[in-house]
Amino acid sequence: MTQPPPTPLPNAGPASSDEPGRRHGRLLLVPVPLDFGCDEQVPIAQVLPGATLEAAASLQHWICESAKSLRAVLKRVDAIHPLAAPIQQQVITELPREVHKKGDAGTGFDARPLLQAALAGHDVGLASEAGMPAVADPGASVARAAHAMGLEVIPLVGPSSLLLALAASGLGGQNFAFVGYLPQDAAARTQRIRALESLALREGQAQLFIETPYRNMALFQALLQALQPETRLSVSSGLTLASGRTRSMPVRAWRQRAAEGVGDAPAVFAIGR
Amino acid sequence: MTQPPPTPLPNAGPASSDEPGRRHGRLLLVPVPLDFGCDEQVPIAQVLPGATLEAAASLQHWICESAKSLRAVLKRVDAIHPLAAPIQQQVITELPREVHKKGDAGTGFDARPLLQAALAGHDVGLASEAGMPAVADPGASVARAAHAMGLEVIPLVGPSSLLLALAASGLGGQNFAFVGYLPQDAAARTQRIRALESLALREGQAQLFIETPYRNMALFQALLQALQPETRLSVSSGLTLASGRTRSMPVRAWRQRAAEGVGDAPAVFAIGR
Repeated sequence: MTQPPPTPLPNAGPASSDEPGRRHGRLLLVPVPLDFGCDEQVPIAQVLPGATLEAAASLQHWICESAKSLRAVLKRVDAIHPLAAPIQQQVITELPREVHKKGDAGTGFDARPLLQAALAGHDVGLASEAGMPAVADPGASVARAAHAMGLEVIPLVGPSSLLLALAASGLGGQNFAFVGYLPQDAAARTQRIRALESLALREGQAQLFIETPYRNMALFQALLQALQPETRLSVSSGLTLASGRTRSMPVRAWRQRAAEGVGDAPAVFAIGR
Repeated sequence: MTQPPPTPLPNAGPASSDEPGRRHGRLLLVPVPLDFGCDEQVPIAQVLPGATLEAAASLQHWICESAKSLRAVLKRVDAIHPLAAPIQQQVITELPREVHKKGDAGTGFDARPLLQAALAGHDVGLASEAGMPAVADPGASVARAAHAMGLEVIPLVGPSSLLLALAASGLGGQNFAFVGYLPQDAAARTQRIRALESLALREGQAQLFIETPYRNMALFQALLQALQPETRLSVSSGLTLASGRTRSMPVRAWRQRAAEGVGDAPAVFAIGR
């Protein structure tokens, strides 16, 4: 039996150099380990499954937060699954700094020019410094541009600190929200904490948020002061690391153990009823 | 140099049979592939990383949605990473049916009796039929009970359709909510869709929800009717499968392609601005 010729995708552009029959390249969302900036490093195959390692090893075009961090990850991938092209030959484009700072929304950033390689038939990878790109991290503008260009967007499986923290919290994953960072100003932060608590208690919607690790302790103390004693607070730190830990209990119980603190590993905070 | 003796954990109970120094067993949240009920099956090592496969293979005590589905997954794990104990000897407890139906919140379900094996020193696995347990699926009550009993709760890396859908949508993962299922009654559903749209547009918070696959098309049509033309709608179906696809565009553009439909594979819907 002869194989039928592959069917071209809709929105087909110039012929692909990678694979006959597929014209445009795809945007692959490539998660990376959560140990960025941590003392402890996780063996990469422990947290990235086969399809993700294979995809990362196959790519030659990347969009990322930091080229340096991406090269370090690719070195770890290469040790498990040899890269198709040496790191020095990879075409790596960093997202502009303004997109890092403010997130993609509201900057009006147009990522389409970054995806020219996909129009020429190459798959392009999108990666952040830790976890899933475009979730609690820049990259959504790139996915959006890919859709606008008619490119296929394929999210690959890997660690997401938010999802791991939510599951471990016991707060109920049938209804939850992630709201990013809270304000830094103490008064505004307390006001925001109370508003989120009120939403969590009223709607039964767990509220998740994050903080820059060196401010974990300040946020933790603000939470213990502002929240009601029966509100449940979960703190997950160092997820996927051997030292990782999730503690989830009512604020009342946390207050008795406040001296333990929350450390300065990357953490996810969640409140609920 | 001699190794120092391992430090016992706080809340230590009876001596563990698994590992010297650790007294209580832990609750491991074990994600499984997303292909449950699908015609297509994904090779399990493509979507579950090493640490998850190892943990799944090591366990002998489980809490799950369906013992039958869990045994099918364990058979797939066994082919990659031989199980420590044969499937017939695994102690598998199903969550009560009322917890499946209503979710864990509001049932007042006390899962502590299910975790007795952990008090006796055995690690216990928690798994749902697809994806991450306790996220958009029952299991939160088990994590909560584990915290109440002073057990360590360890979430393992694997596929979560919500996170994959969010990343692929391009809707911005800095602020999002997952709200579960929408009402089935047509009028109530339209009202809920409009309320979620208003929240998404006003707060810039992407809103994600799911539907039982055979009702995908009814929900899709309700969305096209109720939403404003410039609101962005993303539909991800068959995530992690070869046939998987995410389409994300303004409702205006969807209306021109409504005839394509959304199929009856498990899908995640997201709206945003």
